Amino acid sequence: MNLRQANKADEDAIWDIFHAVIAPGDTYVFDPAMSREEALAYWFRADTHTYVAESDGRIVGTYILKPNQPALGSHIANAAFMVSPTARGLGLGRRMGEHCLAEALRLGFRAMQFNFVVSTNEPAVRLWQQLGFSIVGTLPGAFRHSQLGFVDSYVMFRTLGTVA
Amino acid sequence: MNLRQANKADEDAIWDIFHAVIAPGDTYVFDPAMSREEALAYWFRADTHTYVAESDGRIVGTYILKPNQPALGSHIANAAFMVSPTARGLGLGRRMGEHCLAEALRLGFRAMQFNFVVSTNEPAVRLWQQLGFSIVGTLPGAFRHSQLGFVDSYVMFRTLGTVA
Repeated sequence: MNLRQANKADEDAIWDIFHAVIAPGDTYVFDPAMSREEALAYWFRADTHTYVAESDGRIVGTYILKPNQPALGSHIANAAFMVSPTARGLGLGRRMGEHCLAEALRLGFRAMQFNFVVSTNEPAVRLWQQLGFSIVGTLPGAFRHSQLGFVDSYVMFRTLGTVA
Repeated sequence: MNLRQANKADEDAIWDIFHAVIAPGDTYVFDPAMSREEALAYWFRADTHTYVAESDGRIVGTYILKPNQPALGSHIANAAFMVSPTARGLGLGRRMGEHCLAEALRLGFRAMQFNFVVSTNEPAVRLWQQLGFSIVGTLPGAFRHSQLGFVDSYVMFRTLGTVA
Protein backbone atom coordinates (compact mmCIF):
# COMPACT_ATOMS: atom_id res chain seq x y z
CA MET A 1 0.00 0.00 0.00
CA ASN A 2 1.14 3.46 -0.92
CA LEU A 3 0.33 6.71 0.89
CA ARG A 4 0.77 9.95 -1.02
CA GLN A 5 -0.52 13.52 -1.33
CA ALA A 6 -3.85 13.71 -3.15
CA ASN A 7 -4.41 15.61 -6.36
CA LYS A 8 -7.28 16.71 -8.58
CA ALA A 9 -7.42 13.35 -10.35
CA ASP A 10 -8.28 11.66 -7.03
CA GLU A 11 -11.49 13.62 -6.52
CA ASP A 12 -13.90 10.98 -7.81
CA ALA A 13 -12.38 8.27 -5.63
CA ILE A 14 -12.28 10.55 -2.58
CA TRP A 15 -15.91 11.52 -3.00
CA ASP A 16 -16.94 7.86 -3.31
CA ILE A 17 -15.26 7.12 0.02
CA PHE A 18 -16.43 10.35 1.70
CA HIS A 19 -20.03 9.73 0.71
CA ALA A 20 -19.96 6.08 1.79
CA VAL A 21 -18.51 7.06 5.18
CA ILE A 22 -20.90 9.92 6.01
CA ALA A 23 -24.12 8.45 4.58
CA PRO A 24 -24.88 6.21 7.60
CA GLY A 25 -24.67 9.20 10.00
CA ASP A 26 -22.87 7.21 12.66
CA THR A 27 -19.32 8.62 12.80
CA TYR A 28 -19.07 12.14 11.33
CA VAL A 29 -21.08 15.29 12.02
CA PHE A 30 -21.46 16.07 8.32
CA ASP A 31 -24.95 16.04 6.87
CA PRO A 32 -25.37 12.53 5.40
CA ALA A 33 -26.80 14.30 2.31
CA MET A 34 -23.78 16.63 1.95
CA SER A 35 -23.02 17.37 -1.70
CA ARG A 36 -19.92 16.31 -3.62
CA GLU A 37 -18.97 19.96 -4.12
CA GLU A 38 -19.17 20.81 -0.41
CA ALA A 39 -17.33 17.65 0.58
CA LEU A 40 -14.43 18.22 -1.80
CA ALA A 41 -14.21 21.91 -0.88
CA TYR A 42 -13.85 20.87 2.76
CA TRP A 43 -11.36 18.08 2.05
CA PHE A 44 -9.14 20.30 -0.15
CA ARG A 45 -9.18 23.59 1.78
CA ALA A 46 -6.25 25.98 1.35
CA ASP A 47 -4.85 25.23 4.84
CA THR A 48 -5.33 21.46 4.48
CA HIS A 49 -2.90 18.71 3.44
CA THR A 50 -4.82 15.93 1.72
CA TYR A 51 -3.56 12.36 1.33
CA VAL A 52 -4.79 9.14 -0.25
CA ALA A 53 -3.96 5.48 0.33
CA GLU A 54 -3.55 3.42 -2.82
CA SER A 55 -3.61 -0.34 -3.08
CA ASP A 56 -3.17 -2.06 -6.45
CA GLY A 57 -3.81 1.27 -8.19
CA ARG A 58 -7.12 1.73 -6.36
CA ILE A 59 -7.73 4.45 -3.77
CA VAL A 60 -8.95 2.80 -0.57
CA GLY A 61 -8.61 5.58 1.98
CA THR A 62 -8.01 9.28 2.46
CA TYR A 63 -7.07 11.63 5.25
CA ILE A 64 -6.54 15.32 5.89
CA LEU A 65 -4.06 17.13 8.15
CA LYS A 66 -4.34 20.82 9.05
CA PRO A 67 -3.93 23.32 11.89
CA ASN A 68 -6.73 22.88 14.42
CA GLN A 69 -6.92 26.63 15.10
CA PRO A 70 -5.65 29.80 13.41
CA ALA A 71 -2.50 31.71 14.29
CA LEU A 72 -1.91 31.40 18.06
CA GLY A 73 -3.31 27.87 18.09
CA SER A 74 -1.87 26.69 14.79
CA HIS A 75 0.91 24.61 16.39
CA ILE A 76 -1.68 21.91 17.17
CA ALA A 77 -2.66 19.73 14.23
CA ASN A 78 -6.07 18.32 13.46
CA ALA A 79 -6.78 15.36 11.19
CA ALA A 80 -9.64 13.28 9.81
CA PHE A 81 -9.56 9.82 8.30
CA MET A 82 -11.84 7.87 5.99
CA VAL A 83 -11.49 4.26 4.88
CA SER A 84 -13.46 2.79 2.01
CA PRO A 85 -16.10 0.38 3.36
CA THR A 86 -14.63 -2.17 0.95
CA ALA A 87 -11.23 -1.93 2.68
CA ARG A 88 -12.19 -2.13 6.36
CA GLY A 89 -10.43 -4.45 8.78
CA LEU A 90 -7.11 -4.41 6.92
CA GLY A 91 -5.26 -2.04 9.24
CA LEU A 92 -5.57 0.87 6.85
CA GLY A 93 -6.76 3.28 9.56
CA ARG A 94 -3.67 2.50 11.61
CA ARG A 95 -1.36 2.88 8.60
CA MET A 96 -2.90 6.27 7.77
CA GLY A 97 -2.77 7.33 11.44
CA GLU A 98 0.94 6.50 11.70
CA HIS A 99 1.65 8.26 8.40
CA CYS A 100 -0.30 11.29 9.58
CA LEU A 101 1.60 11.53 12.88
CA ALA A 102 4.90 11.40 10.99
CA GLU A 103 3.71 14.06 8.54
CA ALA A 104 2.53 16.30 11.37
CA LEU A 105 5.91 16.02 13.06
CA ARG A 106 7.70 16.74 9.77
CA LEU A 107 5.51 19.82 9.23
CA GLY A 108 6.45 21.15 12.67
CA PHE A 109 3.25 20.61 14.65
CA ARG A 110 3.73 20.12 18.41
CA ALA A 111 0.63 18.02 19.07
CA MET A 112 -2.47 16.61 17.45
CA GLN A 113 -6.07 17.07 18.52
CA PHE A 114 -9.29 15.40 17.40
CA ASN A 115 -12.25 17.58 18.27
CA PHE A 116 -15.01 15.11 17.73
CA VAL A 117 -14.51 11.34 18.07
CA VAL A 118 -17.95 9.79 18.46
CA SER A 119 -17.92 7.68 21.62
CA THR A 120 -19.83 4.81 20.03
CA ASN A 121 -17.23 4.55 17.25
CA GLU A 122 -15.27 2.14 19.41
CA PRO A 123 -12.79 0.95 16.76
CA ALA A 124 -11.73 4.57 16.21
CA VAL A 125 -11.44 5.38 19.93
CA ARG A 126 -9.37 2.21 20.49
CA LEU A 127 -7.13 2.87 17.48
CA TRP A 128 -6.34 6.43 18.60
CA GLN A 129 -5.61 5.26 22.12
CA GLN A 130 -3.25 2.63 20.71
CA LEU A 131 -1.53 5.39 18.72
CA GLY A 132 -0.91 7.41 21.88
CA PHE A 133 -3.96 9.66 22.07
CA SER A 134 -5.80 10.29 25.32
CA ILE A 135 -9.40 11.32 25.84
CA VAL A 136 -8.92 14.81 27.27
CA GLY A 137 -12.56 15.84 27.15
CA THR A 138 -16.07 14.37 26.93
CA LEU A 139 -18.85 16.34 25.23
CA PRO A 140 -22.18 15.11 26.62
CA GLY A 141 -24.69 14.18 23.92
CA ALA A 142 -22.78 16.17 21.32
CA PHE A 143 -23.48 13.77 18.43
CA ARG A 144 -26.91 13.00 17.04
CA HIS A 145 -26.33 9.41 15.92
CA SER A 146 -28.69 8.24 13.18
CA GLN A 147 -29.51 5.02 15.07
CA LEU A 148 -28.73 5.73 18.72
CA GLY A 149 -29.85 9.33 19.17
CA PHE A 150 -27.70 11.71 21.23
CA VAL A 151 -24.40 10.12 22.24
CA ASP A 152 -21.23 11.57 23.76
CA SER A 153 -18.28 12.70 21.73
CA TYR A 154 -14.62 12.80 22.80
CA VAL A 155 -11.84 15.32 22.41
CA MET A 156 -8.61 13.34 21.95
CA PHE A 157 -5.06 14.68 22.11
CA ARG A 158 -1.45 13.62 21.93
CA THR A 159 1.82 15.46 21.86
CA LEU A 160 4.21 14.76 19.01
CA GLY A 161 7.96 14.27 19.05
CA THR A 162 7.71 10.55 19.58
CA VAL A 163 5.78 8.89 16.78
CA ALA A 164 3.92 5.74 17.83
CA MET B 1 -27.62 48.93 28.46
CA ASN B 2 -29.28 47.46 25.42
CA LEU B 3 -28.48 44.16 23.70
CA ARG B 4 -29.64 43.73 20.12
CA GLN B 5 -28.82 41.98 16.84
CA ALA B 6 -25.98 43.65 14.96
CA ASN B 7 -26.30 45.13 11.50
CA LYS B 8 -24.08 46.53 8.75
CA ALA B 9 -23.97 49.97 10.41
CA ASP B 10 -22.26 48.43 13.46
CA GLU B 11 -19.24 47.18 11.52
CA ASP B 12 -16.88 50.05 12.40
CA ALA B 13 -17.63 49.78 16.09
CA ILE B 14 -17.33 45.98 16.05
CA TRP B 15 -13.99 46.12 14.28
CA ASP B 16 -12.66 48.65 16.80
CA ILE B 17 -13.52 46.27 19.63
CA PHE B 18 -12.38 43.15 17.77
CA HIS B 19 -9.02 44.66 16.97
CA ALA B 20 -8.48 45.98 20.49
CA VAL B 21 -9.29 42.55 21.95
CA ILE B 22 -7.09 40.43 19.65
CA ALA B 23 -4.10 42.80 19.33
CA PRO B 24 -2.50 41.80 22.69
CA GLY B 25 -2.52 38.09 21.70
CA ASP B 26 -3.53 36.96 25.18
CA THR B 27 -7.08 35.64 24.88
CA TYR B 28 -8.00 34.68 21.29
CA VAL B 29 -6.22 32.46 18.76
CA PHE B 30 -6.71 34.97 15.95
CA ASP B 31 -3.61 36.53 14.42
CA PRO B 32 -3.15 39.83 16.29
CA ALA B 33 -2.60 41.39 12.84
CA MET B 34 -5.85 39.97 11.40
CA SER B 35 -7.43 42.34 8.90
CA ARG B 36 -10.73 44.18 9.29
CA GLU B 37 -12.13 42.29 6.30
CA GLU B 38 -11.25 38.85 7.69
CA ALA B 39 -12.51 39.76 11.15
CA LEU B 40 -15.89 41.01 9.95
CA ALA B 41 -16.28 38.04 7.57
CA TYR B 42 -15.77 35.73 10.56
CA TRP B 43 -18.05 37.71 12.90
CA PHE B 44 -20.89 37.88 10.32
CA ARG B 45 -20.79 34.39 8.81
CA ALA B 46 -23.97 33.00 7.27
CA ASP B 47 -24.53 30.53 10.14
CA THR B 48 -23.77 33.11 12.84
CA HIS B 49 -26.05 35.31 14.94
CA THR B 50 -24.24 38.56 15.78
CA TYR B 51 -25.17 40.86 18.65
CA VAL B 52 -23.98 44.18 20.05
CA ALA B 53 -24.27 45.81 23.46
CA GLU B 54 -25.12 49.51 23.39
CA SER B 55 -24.71 51.97 26.21
CA ASP B 56 -25.67 55.64 25.74
CA GLY B 57 -25.74 55.11 21.98
CA ARG B 58 -22.19 53.70 21.97
CA ILE B 59 -21.35 50.08 21.17
CA VAL B 60 -19.32 48.65 24.04
CA GLY B 61 -19.43 44.92 23.37
CA THR B 62 -20.30 42.28 20.81
CA TYR B 63 -20.88 38.54 20.72
CA ILE B 64 -21.65 35.78 18.25
CA LEU B 65 -23.78 32.65 18.63
CA LYS B 66 -23.72 29.76 16.15
CA PRO B 67 -23.77 25.98 15.86
CA ASN B 68 -20.48 24.51 17.07
CA GLN B 69 -20.56 21.77 14.43
CA PRO B 70 -22.47 21.07 11.21
CA ALA B 71 -25.56 18.90 10.85
CA LEU B 72 -25.33 16.03 13.37
CA GLY B 73 -23.57 18.25 15.91
CA SER B 74 -25.54 21.42 15.26
CA HIS B 75 -27.69 21.10 18.41
CA ILE B 76 -24.73 22.37 20.46
CA ALA B 77 -24.16 26.12 20.31
CA ASN B 78 -20.86 27.93 20.29
CA ALA B 79 -20.32 31.58 21.20
CA ALA B 80 -17.60 34.20 21.48
CA PHE B 81 -17.63 37.47 23.39
CA MET B 82 -15.70 40.71 23.15
CA VAL B 83 -15.89 43.72 25.46
CA SER B 84 -14.41 47.09 24.58
CA PRO B 85 -11.30 47.73 26.72
CA THR B 86 -12.97 51.02 27.67
CA ALA B 87 -15.95 49.15 29.17
CA ARG B 88 -14.22 46.45 31.23
CA GLY B 89 -15.18 45.71 34.83
CA LEU B 90 -18.79 46.80 34.41
CA GLY B 91 -20.37 43.35 34.25
CA LEU B 92 -20.86 43.54 30.51
CA GLY B 93 -19.40 40.08 29.87
CA ARG B 94 -21.90 38.59 32.31
CA ARG B 95 -24.81 40.51 30.76
CA MET B 96 -23.86 39.31 27.29
CA GLY B 97 -23.33 35.76 28.57
CA GLU B 98 -26.78 35.64 30.15
CA HIS B 99 -28.35 37.13 27.01
CA CYS B 100 -26.53 34.60 24.86
CA LEU B 101 -27.71 31.64 26.95
CA ALA B 102 -31.31 32.87 26.67
CA GLU B 103 -30.94 33.36 22.90
CA ALA B 104 -29.43 29.89 22.49
CA LEU B 105 -32.35 28.35 24.37
CA ARG B 106 -34.84 30.36 22.30
CA LEU B 107 -33.15 29.18 19.08
CA GLY B 108 -33.49 25.55 20.18
CA PHE B 109 -29.91 24.64 21.07
CA ARG B 110 -29.55 21.89 23.72
CA ALA B 111 -26.18 22.93 25.13
CA MET B 112 -23.35 25.41 24.67
CA GLN B 113 -19.67 24.65 24.18
CA PHE B 114 -16.60 26.88 24.21
CA ASN B 115 -13.76 25.19 22.33
CA PHE B 116 -10.91 27.40 23.42
CA VAL B 117 -10.96 29.32 26.71
CA VAL B 118 -7.36 30.30 27.45
CA SER B 119 -6.52 29.02 30.94
CA THR B 120 -4.68 32.22 31.92
CA ASN B 121 -7.76 34.31 31.08
CA GLU B 122 -8.96 33.82 34.63
CA PRO B 123 -11.80 36.38 34.58
CA ALA B 124 -13.33 34.54 31.61
CA VAL B 125 -12.92 31.07 33.14
CA ARG B 126 -14.47 32.29 36.41
CA LEU B 127 -17.35 34.04 34.65
CA TRP B 128 -18.27 30.97 32.60
CA GLN B 129 -18.12 28.78 35.70
CA GLN B 130 -20.44 31.22 37.47
CA LEU B 131 -22.81 30.97 34.50
CA GLY B 132 -22.97 27.19 34.83
CA PHE B 133 -20.21 26.02 32.52
CA SER B 134 -17.81 23.25 33.49
CA ILE B 135 -14.30 22.61 32.21
CA VAL B 136 -14.84 19.32 30.34
CA GLY B 137 -11.42 19.21 28.70
CA THR B 138 -7.92 20.62 29.02
CA LEU B 139 -5.77 21.10 25.91
CA PRO B 140 -2.11 21.07 26.99
CA GLY B 141 -0.14 24.04 25.68
CA ALA B 142 -2.75 24.73 23.01
CA PHE B 143 -2.42 28.54 23.12
CA ARG B 144 0.73 30.46 22.23
CA HIS B 145 0.31 33.44 24.57
CA SER B 146 2.17 36.56 23.46
CA GLN B 147 3.68 37.07 26.92
CA LEU B 148 3.60 33.65 28.60
CA GLY B 149 4.40 31.27 25.75
CA PHE B 150 2.50 27.98 25.48
CA VAL B 151 -0.34 27.77 28.00
CA ASP B 152 -3.27 25.37 28.37
CA SER B 153 -6.68 26.00 26.94
CA TYR B 154 -10.01 24.70 28.23
CA VAL B 155 -13.07 23.21 26.58
CA MET B 156 -16.10 24.42 28.57
CA PHE B 157 -19.65 23.11 28.32
CA ARG B 158 -23.09 23.51 29.81
CA THR B 159 -26.47 22.12 28.97
CA LEU B 160 -29.32 24.56 28.42
CA GLY B 161 -32.88 24.41 29.61
CA THR B 162 -32.17 26.26 32.82
CA VAL B 163 -30.71 29.68 32.16
CA ALA B 164 -28.37 30.96 34.89
